Amino acid sequence: MSEPMIKREGEMPDGTGRMLFVCVLSTTDTAKIPGISAAGSVPEITDYTPAGDAELVTIGRPVSVPDLPMTPSGCPTPALITRAAVHLTETPTLFVDSGLRIRPCVPTLNMNAQPGRDIRSGSAVNGVEQIYENAVRVGQMLSGFADTIVIGESIPGGTTTALGVLRAMGYDARVSSSFPVNPLELKHRVVEEGMRAARTGFGDFRNEPFRAVAHLGDPMMPTVSGIAAGIAEGGAEYILAGGTQMLAVAAVMRGMNMDLDNIPIATTKYIVEDGTSNFTDMAEELGCRTYSADPGFDNSRVHQLAGYERGEVKEGVGAGGAVLLAAVKGISQDILRCEIEETYLRLNDEG
Amino acid sequence: MSEPMIKREGEMPDGTGRMLFVCVLSTTDTAKIPGISAAGSVPEITDYTPAGDAELVTIGRPVSVPDLPMTPSGCPTPALITRAAVHLTETPTLFVDSGLRIRPCVPTLNMNAQPGRDIRSGSAVNGVEQIYENAVRVGQMLSGFADTIVIGESIPGGTTTALGVLRAMGYDARVSSSFPVNPLELKHRVVEEGMRAARTGFGDFRNEPFRAVAHLGDPMMPTVSGIAAGIAEGGAEYILAGGTQMLAVAAVMRGMNMDLDNIPIATTKYIVEDGTSNFTDMAEELGCRTYSADPGFDNSRVHQLAGYERGEVKEGVGAGGAVLLAAVKGISQDILRCEIEETYLRLNDEG
Repeated sequence: MSEPMIKREGEMPDGTGRMLFVCVLSTTDTAKIPGISAAGSVPEITDYTPAGDAELVTIGRPVSVPDLPMTPSGCPTPALITRAAVHLTETPTLFVDSGLRIRPCVPTLNMNAQPGRDIRSGSAVNGVEQIYENAVRVGQMLSGFADTIVIGESIPGGTTTALGVLRAMGYDARVSSSFPVNPLELKHRVVEEGMRAARTGFGDFRNEPFRAVAHLGDPMMPTVSGIAAGIAEGGAEYILAGGTQMLAVAAVMRGMNMDLDNIPIATTKYIVEDGTSNFTDMAEELGCRTYSADPGFDNSRVHQLAGYERGEVKEGVGAGGAVLLAAVKGISQDILRCEIEETYLRLNDEG
Repeated sequence: MSEPMIKREGEMPDGTGRMLFVCVLSTTDTAKIPGISAAGSVPEITDYTPAGDAELVTIGRPVSVPDLPMTPSGCPTPALITRAAVHLTETPTLFVDSGLRIRPCVPTLNMNAQPGRDIRSGSAVNGVEQIYENAVRVGQMLSGFADTIVIGESIPGGTTTALGVLRAMGYDARVSSSFPVNPLELKHRVVEEGMRAARTGFGDFRNEPFRAVAHLGDPMMPTVSGIAAGIAEGGAEYILAGGTQMLAVAAVMRGMNMDLDNIPIATTKYIVEDGTSNFTDMAEELGCRTYSADPGFDNSRVHQLAGYERGEVKEGVGAGGAVLLAAVKGISQDILRCEIEETYLRLNDEG
């Protein structure tokens, strides 16, 4: 017997409504600090990872990268999960370029954001407020297009910038990682260095989320928080889809004193069960309600997917939210896992 | 008594459905041939015109250009008409970057298209098929978002590339112009030069629309035709909004032997009544049904808008389609004209 595909705190979204999957893509120089990101076999590849993810989800194969994005140990990108879920449910997808160096071959909505700098400089993101305002406009537009909008992210190194913003805003976060052994000490060192360079400390930007993002964050954050705010203003439902990165987004939204109920976050069980991170406690502190998704890889015939069960990859490209979406639309865990396996095998010529 | 705001051949779109206004933005080096385009006070400005148009429609004022885009004689951009119509009707807008050199500060959907080259080289657009395929995907997505989607364009020099594609496909077109005196001879000379360089002649690409676009067209064409095709595939309604440019798009769609009924084109009365162009005959030959929109500038207190009545500007930024949209949503000609006038006067500090 498999575990249920979704464990949840709140109501399931209405499966009869129109759904949309949005994914915000960014790159930063923080991702290129050796040892920070495993979203790519070598640090330089991280610029290509979001483009490959977008292509895989949209057309079923990466184009701008020769191979499936994967960790150094060969565990494939969570974009595979997302692809399977949106493909099976025929959910429209929209990718948002919020600071890419390498753009995918599929259409993206361009936010005019620059790639993020290395946060060790203490100056990470230009034009945070402008990006946010543009994103609110996008969210308002999208609210007219669908009833429930899942918002994911693909940003290598994103847990480090998430840690930076959470700590700058006074949250004692421990973050997850796409490495099997979480380089938490390195991440903290990078954030500390950034804080020193920005002449700021823990909690100094508690009520100044834009300054926290500008000094220690990344260009994904103002885009996701703005889109979510715009969707809510427009009267539709949003669901943040991700792990630690979406906690940072929730912190930004809380810091702006928006009139928000519980902020819905869907993520994977690999995040929720990650002993090195305190996702659940943080989500509670931030007033989030969480959905935990299990794509059922413990039963997989593909050993590379079993890497997820060993914690080699945990989340990304809105995978948890995409599984939630599939569940809402009546897709079973077995059907979803088979689709993921077939896509993986087809792309690796092992099928 | 004013004339009716819309003269039409077919059914009016269903005013109770969800509407979306899409506008495809492109630039080309053809626009910089002296005397070709009046969409900007000097040829170099044509790179900025689509960006300014997108900003004006989205947020009510241009940002990337210091002044309202206008002709050398001071007649303002038709984006003013579009702004008023989408603003009054609260219609969501989506701008598409299909080969911009200067990007607007508002979000745009990026098609990964390069700016068009000077068609006198005989080689105008790279990757036409890829752009088209991406655009079909966008159209399919948009078909889930709205019931009726108006698709406009902003591409300086676009009537010359339209002439090139129409002639290469065997249509004896005479095209409109944003100059009061249509430099038709110059346009024909430019097209002839491009045909010689491409070693092709009138009608040689009758059944090869992608080759016609690649040699003599512009990057707006595969995007608009692909989006329209995708919308139709997805089961929603599209309306092409423009003059001669949309005839070229219709020719591309016809050339692909799509299973299409009448192709709906909404334009302004300034195009339909332009004695130097044969819009109505061409539309009939291409199996289009047309809507002719009149924003009522003959009654305007703003003399710069009266320039439209003198034929100084005729169409662009989907103005005719936007007026149709306003009419469908119950906006009167007087209300629309007042909104246009107020926007113009506010932007010129004369209000």
